[in-house]
Amino acid sequence: MTSDAYNELEKHFQRIANLESAKAILHWDSATKMPVGGAMARIEQLATLDGVIHSLITDPDIGELIDKAKGKDIDSWSTRNLELMEQRWQRASAVPAGLVEAYTRACVSCEACWRYARDRNDYSVLVPLLTEVVTLTRERACALSDALDLMPYDALLDEHDPGCRVKELDKLFSELQNFLPSLTNEAMSRQEKQEKPRHERARFPVKYQQRVAKLLMLQLGLEDNHSRLDVSHHPFSGGVPDDVRITTRYNEDNMAQGLLGVLHETGHALYERGLPKDWRGQPVGEAHGMAVHESQSLLIEMQVSRSQPFLTFLTTKLQSLFGDADFLQGVQDLSCLWTWVEPGLIRVDADEVTYPSHIILRYELERQLIDGHLDPIDLPEAWSVGMGKYLGIVPLDDRDGCMQDIHWYTGEFGYFPSYTVGAVAAAQFFAAATGQMPQMDENIECGDFSLLLSWLRCNIHSCGSRYSRDQLLRRATGRELETFDFERHLRKRYLD
Amino acid sequence: MTSDAYNELEKHFQRIANLESAKAILHWDSATKMPVGGAMARIEQLATLDGVIHSLITDPDIGELIDKAKGKDIDSWSTRNLELMEQRWQRASAVPAGLVEAYTRACVSCEACWRYARDRNDYSVLVPLLTEVVTLTRERACALSDALDLMPYDALLDEHDPGCRVKELDKLFSELQNFLPSLTNEAMSRQEKQEKPRHERARFPVKYQQRVAKLLMLQLGLEDNHSRLDVSHHPFSGGVPDDVRITTRYNEDNMAQGLLGVLHETGHALYERGLPKDWRGQPVGEAHGMAVHESQSLLIEMQVSRSQPFLTFLTTKLQSLFGDADFLQGVQDLSCLWTWVEPGLIRVDADEVTYPSHIILRYELERQLIDGHLDPIDLPEAWSVGMGKYLGIVPLDDRDGCMQDIHWYTGEFGYFPSYTVGAVAAAQFFAAATGQMPQMDENIECGDFSLLLSWLRCNIHSCGSRYSRDQLLRRATGRELETFDFERHLRKRYLD
Repeated sequence: MTSDAYNELEKHFQRIANLESAKAILHWDSATKMPVGGAMARIEQLATLDGVIHSLITDPDIGELIDKAKGKDIDSWSTRNLELMEQRWQRASAVPAGLVEAYTRACVSCEACWRYARDRNDYSVLVPLLTEVVTLTRERACALSDALDLMPYDALLDEHDPGCRVKELDKLFSELQNFLPSLTNEAMSRQEKQEKPRHERARFPVKYQQRVAKLLMLQLGLEDNHSRLDVSHHPFSGGVPDDVRITTRYNEDNMAQGLLGVLHETGHALYERGLPKDWRGQPVGEAHGMAVHESQSLLIEMQVSRSQPFLTFLTTKLQSLFGDADFLQGVQDLSCLWTWVEPGLIRVDADEVTYPSHIILRYELERQLIDGHLDPIDLPEAWSVGMGKYLGIVPLDDRDGCMQDIHWYTGEFGYFPSYTVGAVAAAQFFAAATGQMPQMDENIECGDFSLLLSWLRCNIHSCGSRYSRDQLLRRATGRELETFDFERHLRKRYLD
Repeated sequence: MTSDAYNELEKHFQRIANLESAKAILHWDSATKMPVGGAMARIEQLATLDGVIHSLITDPDIGELIDKAKGKDIDSWSTRNLELMEQRWQRASAVPAGLVEAYTRACVSCEACWRYARDRNDYSVLVPLLTEVVTLTRERACALSDALDLMPYDALLDEHDPGCRVKELDKLFSELQNFLPSLTNEAMSRQEKQEKPRHERARFPVKYQQRVAKLLMLQLGLEDNHSRLDVSHHPFSGGVPDDVRITTRYNEDNMAQGLLGVLHETGHALYERGLPKDWRGQPVGEAHGMAVHESQSLLIEMQVSRSQPFLTFLTTKLQSLFGDADFLQGVQDLSCLWTWVEPGLIRVDADEVTYPSHIILRYELERQLIDGHLDPIDLPEAWSVGMGKYLGIVPLDDRDGCMQDIHWYTGEFGYFPSYTVGAVAAAQFFAAATGQMPQMDENIECGDFSLLLSWLRCNIHSCGSRYSRDQLLRRATGRELETFDFERHLRKRYLD
């Protein structure tokens, strides 16, 4: 029997989760359906919801209830749930309300300025606002650091990927640096024989792309009565576990963009759909964090969708769907397009081999920004130096340089590493799944993803936040996070 | 200078309004975009929001702040705002939390059962649930009656149309009963010469209907960056003043249905758009109530859109848009279709002449239900008797009888009269506007609605809830609510 205090806490956190769900739908609406004139009202709605949620999480009664519930006879899931409740309560209570408000306001202003500044390629107007965001982020990090007994930057990492620390990342990134530069060069020299695929050869009408995208979502295992597919400026997966909402954007000259967007987001959405039903609305029932989330999207996008068996399946599917339509001549480029390796300026356009270098650069720079070793005014210079060092190319302007990503300008520091932790974990998960199911390639070639999905459901999705990231990896793959499978995957795909 | 207590109240009610806005968008989403599998999560989101809103409105500090703010030197709008805040606080505090919860639960169950029972044409399964709803509604009405010093049914009327009382409605409905039966007969005997228009002669592809609908919305004055048009099972106007969301449904065999839906909802949406910007989020800045709201939708639908000048404009527009497309041959039927008078079983399909009889029947029955003079088990019998008395026809089954409307089964008693009060007020408003602008017909024929919109903005929309319904009528038309203009309008349109 669970304790009264614990039951009370579950009810309280369920209410918080319901309000978070409401926010998720409103965010989706803002990006997909809201007429522009509705923006101010939407900001007010979301800010009020944030305020209500904050006051519910920091409710002084929570601390007391947690103390009462501790040590009572509750099962292991409830124990973990209680632990996560306490972490949330500590986090939220650590930062003074005045600082939360100042930080939120600074982020909103900076984001708006970022859109303006990036359009005009004028970093200088952003400097004072970014400086303010960095200063307040540092203050937040210090407040969290005190409360959680973590280094300030670790406290930020922990927000996005619970348990992630600088120490681990330094080791991971240095291992990647050991093989990625030479692997990139080798892959590129192999490509020299090939003609670089031209996007424009494959011109796919949007309505066909939509049909294919929807079909792939369903085939991968998303149920039609629990999901939507819409268009937004940037692809994302939003909504709530029983009502997941994927978005993408379509470009008739480049089907890869829209389709890979949907495949990536389907990975995220499948994770949400598979979270433990019995723990809906409880911290332990939620996704583990951004790194595990990204491992699920990248598993579908990088491990599955860009593989030869999937490309065979997709090509066959497209041919059976659209017969001998003109645009089908472009399909033969897909395989080459989806596995082309070439250092570029833009992170979101990067291939999986050069992508980690973009992340390592950002990781180094954001640590320096938060530590105070790098002044925002000097960011463009540091960016160019870093790009030269890690990718061998230098942006001609700040738009394609330090202004390309929204993250820092909305106060998201400590987020970037999740992308690469996720990519490495994706390779490790997929290698384990394939090891246990030798028929994987064959199944994928036939468009049968049911066994893969069952494996993911069983080993990852249904675990919610029951385990730490490393426990999750150990249970599913027998090992903690390591680069072995990632390197082997890249060597096989790009050098074999 | 406004008082601190008053300012505090404004902030508090602004937060409540922001949460109500969030709810409005979520409601829209439920009816238009949500995959069915999201329903349970949505119910939780809305229930939690309701709970938060309820606790904010009944916050004991509110009463104290209101007392402090009273008598302070505040302007007339703020004084009225304060009065409305107090009414809301009194209303919300009058009903015990346990009763609110029991009532909400009973309504949700009854509504679900209604959908099932209506589909199967089986009223008997509904009886226990409707009985529960009626019982709890009566308890609610009595609690409100004590707190507001109103008769119980008046307290329900007041929820939908503030200030509305049985005494006034009895007088209004008896006046209508004095001329409607004979007017209906006369109109019908005039029609005898005409062939009854067949819907199927005008077959309009949905994509054309959507184009026309969107065009009419914009032409009537809704701005594209503050509005949307989508499809839902029942047409409605939702969202918030700066982000209004209209829905309709399309039937290729009956363009009138979809288009009149959009025109009606555009009237509602224009009202919301025109509410005083300086008072967004405050009770005084909100729409007055359902009767005034309905007067705005019916002014556009009945007074404007079914008029000869508008039909001329629409026909010309359709011809210029679609040239000599096949379906245009149906357009000539529109005028006849949109002004056909014939008693029918279904309220929502009724013409404007017979519509009030449907309302009078419901008004009589719901009063008896609330007073306890009619037992839900006897409703079908009372319905048939009433239909025979007021409309001369009797339903063959309960589906087309007492189960046709959702209102009672979701606990909405006291709502129906607003439709007819709105229709009568619409005629009065439109007559006043036309009296002040003799070029009205000419403008409408050219599709120029700007003067009409300015008049509505100035005399109604921008007043928000500053005045009572009768003050609003007196200011705009020189008189309180009366049937004179409504009767004249019907005689002109149907007997001239």
